[in-house]
Amino acid sequence: MDVELVTIGAELLLGLTLDTNAADLARTLASVGARVVRRTTVSDDAGAIRDAVAAALGRSRFVITTGGLGPTNDDVTKQAVAEVYGVRLVLDDVYLARLEQRWRRLGRAGPMPVANRSQAMLPEGATVLSNPRGTAPGLWLEDGRGVVVLLPGVPHELCALAADEVAPRVAQRAGGSVILSRVLRTTGIAESQLADRIGPVEPQLRPATLAYLPSFDGVDLRVTVWSGPRAEAEALLGRAAAAMRPLLAPWYYGEDGADLAAVVLDRARDAGARLATAESCTGGLVAARLTAIPGASATFAGGVVAYDNAVKTGELGVAQELLAIHGAVSEPVVLAMADGARARFGADTAVAVSGIAGPNGGTADKPVGTIWLAGSWRDVHRTLRLALPGDRAEIRARATQAALNLLRRMLEGPSDAPVVVH
Amino acid sequence: MDVELVTIGAELLLGLTLDTNAADLARTLASVGARVVRRTTVSDDAGAIRDAVAAALGRSRFVITTGGLGPTNDDVTKQAVAEVYGVRLVLDDVYLARLEQRWRRLGRAGPMPVANRSQAMLPEGATVLSNPRGTAPGLWLEDGRGVVVLLPGVPHELCALAADEVAPRVAQRAGGSVILSRVLRTTGIAESQLADRIGPVEPQLRPATLAYLPSFDGVDLRVTVWSGPRAEAEALLGRAAAAMRPLLAPWYYGEDGADLAAVVLDRARDAGARLATAESCTGGLVAARLTAIPGASATFAGGVVAYDNAVKTGELGVAQELLAIHGAVSEPVVLAMADGARARFGADTAVAVSGIAGPNGGTADKPVGTIWLAGSWRDVHRTLRLALPGDRAEIRARATQAALNLLRRMLEGPSDAPVVVH
Repeated sequence: MDVELVTIGAELLLGLTLDTNAADLARTLASVGARVVRRTTVSDDAGAIRDAVAAALGRSRFVITTGGLGPTNDDVTKQAVAEVYGVRLVLDDVYLARLEQRWRRLGRAGPMPVANRSQAMLPEGATVLSNPRGTAPGLWLEDGRGVVVLLPGVPHELCALAADEVAPRVAQRAGGSVILSRVLRTTGIAESQLADRIGPVEPQLRPATLAYLPSFDGVDLRVTVWSGPRAEAEALLGRAAAAMRPLLAPWYYGEDGADLAAVVLDRARDAGARLATAESCTGGLVAARLTAIPGASATFAGGVVAYDNAVKTGELGVAQELLAIHGAVSEPVVLAMADGARARFGADTAVAVSGIAGPNGGTADKPVGTIWLAGSWRDVHRTLRLALPGDRAEIRARATQAALNLLRRMLEGPSDAPVVVH
Repeated sequence: MDVELVTIGAELLLGLTLDTNAADLARTLASVGARVVRRTTVSDDAGAIRDAVAAALGRSRFVITTGGLGPTNDDVTKQAVAEVYGVRLVLDDVYLARLEQRWRRLGRAGPMPVANRSQAMLPEGATVLSNPRGTAPGLWLEDGRGVVVLLPGVPHELCALAADEVAPRVAQRAGGSVILSRVLRTTGIAESQLADRIGPVEPQLRPATLAYLPSFDGVDLRVTVWSGPRAEAEALLGRAAAAMRPLLAPWYYGEDGADLAAVVLDRARDAGARLATAESCTGGLVAARLTAIPGASATFAGGVVAYDNAVKTGELGVAQELLAIHGAVSEPVVLAMADGARARFGADTAVAVSGIAGPNGGTADKPVGTIWLAGSWRDVHRTLRLALPGDRAEIRARATQAALNLLRRMLEGPSDAPVVVH
């Protein structure tokens, strides 16, 4: 089943915003067997929207628009699409009541602004797709010429509407054929090393195709089956994953959306170990990754962001002499930080990070990107010195992932597999 | 001057690759006065490319394509555009010699593959735009109907060609006109409330246009001048910003790429205040935002991620009775956390966050999304109870921004302006 997207917004054309919505929508649609065959991006201009939607409807009979459903003057998508269908916008009392209820529930002061009322003006005959995350409803218009679905441009609202409201309806029309992907996530191994390992089994994966997706977090391997019934596609993907996984351990940590932080929490729970963190250059990112996982409190005790050397000594009990002799970015200090965090939080295991994220603070000995990691568990200590590329944000993200991976591998037991960084 | 983009590639439509090329091109074009009025994305299909380019040329007389110039079978852009112009592809001996020279210069073994020869097949009458970074040339075709420029899809090749070859030629045609934007960033006020405040001055902004860009961080207001000499556009934007800013204080915190965390660090430095954080549900995100800013160490002492109640009492000195009577998510506890962090880190000011990020842990009294914030500075304390919508990640992001905003407003001095959340 073919779909066209019309994405709306001056910021998209100006290049100030990347069109992540279009990409998210395309992936969601693929999962239920619909293929995006064309995407048109126009400004918040009623004439341009009308022309683009009418042309897309004529070609493909199924069109999804994103953006232009907000409460302000530059939001004209509803009006433009209503004109394509030759219907009026009318005040929807039920929807208006819902908006007013939401306004009060969020505890906002005074009456709801007039601007919000315009969001209850809906095209006659449109089906409302519920958007509990925002004030703009999704809308579904349909007549003999085909379907136009209007979705809001706010990314998290769009993603939820696409998954919860649009995908099930599209799946029904697409008649059972799907495009399915499965992702095997690895970290600590380079793309070219992975290619050397996976190369020999690649022919066995057909008709599934394989893509390497490197990022700061590692390299994801995506296998895709491009058509067929769901059960058949799932079996193909299952066989492909089974062929690859043995070649990927110990760098493999999970599938699809698996988060390394969640894997660490699982391993810690299995080992009966309570976790703590001590962070310098990552400044709270390791703790933030762990606490992003629901239920983290069962396993994660807490952490210290020891930015100042005074905090390293005062809070974590790092000896003044260690700092004076070796400097804050050193193996002895990062080991003392990890043990200090264990002691301080009464935790069974801790990870510590100290490094130079830049842009300043580098020296010839310890250039920007130098990071020391230490893990402490039972009577085991592990340390790792990294030389990370990139700017401050990249170095912090890479160091955070490497710290979580150190914890994972320590909790999984002894291993000699080498580690590279991303 | 109006331009249309036609971006080509199955990976763009599948949502596997973000169209960063289109965004880069748009910004480069804007800087020399050309405006992207429409973008069409099609697959590597000669018919679809031909249709899209012909339609764009008919509407806008200036079209730039990206992608489909490589040496493999799925690269069909040249052929498709040559058909639009009614010309043939012919072997360009000069370009072929250049390709062969490049092959030898890179020290590659054996003769150049036949596939690369196809890259020297160029549309008759096309101007070659030099691409020293790759094997696909940029191409410029022009007749009475207008211009089509073909650029390769490899991002760094495209960026260089756009800046070095396309921009100067477009600048000449655009006659010194530019498109300029300026963004005013606000937080703590709803989009619709902003619209009510800004509405009365909107006519004064003309010919600049205004767009509202809401996110978890607040609402950005972007003013854009769409044509005119640079000095004139800058003056218009300056006047527009000056007209709006008085209506936006105290929600306004900076322009363009301003980061609220950087603003907080600036205000703290100006006030001579060292900062500390105490976080429960945000789990390190406030500290991570602050330490993302280069030079944060001059102002930020450190933080505690007090996930466990034992950490709240042990590390932050929160009295056991307060936790027992009021619960961890309460005004007395969050105040004690802020004061505890100040004392613990020897800091002058601290912010504390405690709340229920979900998905579990909510009660009738304190549903998921309930957040208490406290700021402590000199003898001043401020607290705020928030009821945040969204999932765990959204609630954490919103609470983090609200905590930074509480710090900002406390450091900026007394104010009674109400606060909403995003």
